[in-house]
Amino acid sequence: MTPIFKELKRDGSSFARTGELDLNGIRVETPVFMPVGTRGSIKSLSSEDILELKLPLILANTYHLYLRPGTEVLDSFGGLKKFMSYPNALLTDSGGFQVFSLQGLFKFQEDGVRFQSHIDGSYHTFTPEKVIDIQRSIGSDIMMVLDDCAPYGSDRKRLELGLKRTHSWAKKSIDYWSQNPGNQSLFGIAQGGVDPELRIQSLETINSLPFSGVAIGGLSVGESREEFVEILKVLGPHLDASRARYLMGVGTVPDILDGVRNGIDMFDCVLPTRNARNAQVFTSRGKVNLKNESHKFSDSPIDPDCNCKVCKNYSLGYIRHLHKVKELLAFQLSTFHNLHFMQNFMSKLRSEINHGSFTEFYDFWKKLYTR
Amino acid sequence: MTPIFKELKRDGSSFARTGELDLNGIRVETPVFMPVGTRGSIKSLSSEDILELKLPLILANTYHLYLRPGTEVLDSFGGLKKFMSYPNALLTDSGGFQVFSLQGLFKFQEDGVRFQSHIDGSYHTFTPEKVIDIQRSIGSDIMMVLDDCAPYGSDRKRLELGLKRTHSWAKKSIDYWSQNPGNQSLFGIAQGGVDPELRIQSLETINSLPFSGVAIGGLSVGESREEFVEILKVLGPHLDASRARYLMGVGTVPDILDGVRNGIDMFDCVLPTRNARNAQVFTSRGKVNLKNESHKFSDSPIDPDCNCKVCKNYSLGYIRHLHKVKELLAFQLSTFHNLHFMQNFMSKLRSEINHGSFTEFYDFWKKLYTR
Repeated sequence: MTPIFKELKRDGSSFARTGELDLNGIRVETPVFMPVGTRGSIKSLSSEDILELKLPLILANTYHLYLRPGTEVLDSFGGLKKFMSYPNALLTDSGGFQVFSLQGLFKFQEDGVRFQSHIDGSYHTFTPEKVIDIQRSIGSDIMMVLDDCAPYGSDRKRLELGLKRTHSWAKKSIDYWSQNPGNQSLFGIAQGGVDPELRIQSLETINSLPFSGVAIGGLSVGESREEFVEILKVLGPHLDASRARYLMGVGTVPDILDGVRNGIDMFDCVLPTRNARNAQVFTSRGKVNLKNESHKFSDSPIDPDCNCKVCKNYSLGYIRHLHKVKELLAFQLSTFHNLHFMQNFMSKLRSEINHGSFTEFYDFWKKLYTR
Repeated sequence: MTPIFKELKRDGSSFARTGELDLNGIRVETPVFMPVGTRGSIKSLSSEDILELKLPLILANTYHLYLRPGTEVLDSFGGLKKFMSYPNALLTDSGGFQVFSLQGLFKFQEDGVRFQSHIDGSYHTFTPEKVIDIQRSIGSDIMMVLDDCAPYGSDRKRLELGLKRTHSWAKKSIDYWSQNPGNQSLFGIAQGGVDPELRIQSLETINSLPFSGVAIGGLSVGESREEFVEILKVLGPHLDASRARYLMGVGTVPDILDGVRNGIDMFDCVLPTRNARNAQVFTSRGKVNLKNESHKFSDSPIDPDCNCKVCKNYSLGYIRHLHKVKELLAFQLSTFHNLHFMQNFMSKLRSEINHGSFTEFYDFWKKLYTR
């Protein structure tokens, strides 16, 4: 295991911390939010936009890229980053989560999962080794292991079976990866649903393996906010300080705040980009629905305190119009603004941790973004 | 009438010419192609893209803008250009053509046309005066008169009725406009279907009125290519040299070439932008279908001879992938490239006229873009 993470500063009254990842020479300050570029594009943004937003680390989805354009194309281009003209760091999931969302179209096997493509119904199999090979074709800086994310509401028996698979696959993954580690790091994933005992057991198992980072999977999948926060609190004291800790699929402002408070360094979520396409934007004054009649005549920017190119050049009234008539430009402008907001929010969050004022920051933003 | 057009150079062997429009201080070299921004946005492009493409003159549609955002909003923002953060010149149609496309939802009246909105079925009336007032709210540099564009295939009686309305409305328009000309120019529109005699009659009538420019309407509406070219040839000798001549709704490469050859200065068309969204792009080697399997592994740009930002940064293989998976970025990249192509094509066309080599240019591009 090559160490890629360095802790910089700890908050005095919580598990919050700042740090930095070194991903093949690309420096990523943590806590970091990773926007999602499922199929090799952050929906509606160009690679120039991504550079202008100074995104150091984005996520792409192995399941989607495996099906289209496929590993043959990715290999031919020398990986996804070259394919999409993106020069910074990349993390890929294992594809497992997407497969387990294909209701009725997948089946567990001893050594992996067999599934049908949602595009053409063709049959495929993912194993711990296979998803590493696919991620090698993608060429991500951080690869994730195949795991079994049991659905929310699973009984203890199903959760235990999930852990058994998850831990067995984790060992197979680290063995396979170790034979030829190259310059791609591998993260393990802990599961356990909302069962505190199983959660700790799974985290300790994953901690015991030489992964470069440890992820918490299977949260934000249907549990209540109380259950979500409870599990984070249970896990906080057991997280390994020497490694990056990643909370998968989490990305609302309150959820990030509770993640950071309990020691999480990395987040990803489609919400800032999906909400933007649905006309919901984030501002220093809370969430704004761009379609509201009240914005019809507004010549103010989306957020008067924002200095992104969208807030500099366009009015709320115009962007509202674009959403009302479903112009494609509406999606670009709103997405760019929301990702600029997330970048700025995470930057302020890091600064507050470094200056010992995380608690005040937590209280202010939690209140503003909780309805 | 304020003269806004100046002829610069005539081709020796055709009616082709170069010239320039002065639109409130914005200089537009002709022949010019105007991209279409129907609802206050060139579909998928930002105002930054429009500036980068150096588009001096674009078109917006009065019918769509009248319905949404409506004149109240446009008045409040001081016109469309401020609303959409676009600083260059703007031409608007009268809205009539869109109304006459609302099959079964419009009815002629003595002084205009009554119609139902395609959005909510509400009733509205356009008169020659009303559409000028709407275009004043939009604040375009060039306004178009309301005319009656008879459908292709209309009999002589219907065409004659169309001319009667068109000419009567043209007179009402110039009278109404003259009371308060401001800084918005007004263009007349000649009709007459594919009947040479009526075409000349209509053009002479419009020529006799003090419009700043004269448009040919009602072509490219279903007639054969032979009929289209025949009418252009008939009209060429009757066009007024002192004024700008605009061929409405025309914009394929061969149609522009035949328009220019017969004396046209201005063109507009949705094809370069619509085709881009359907994965068809224009190149120095002809049209390219981006979805073709043959581009799957191509790391070449869309057009090796193009220096636009899309061709500099992205491969055919990647843009093909974006179209195949229907990513929004596919539309932006393809649209930007096609409008860059059109800008470049028109620039070369002007240069060839100025250098006396229009005929060779005509032959080369006509052949390349005619299948």
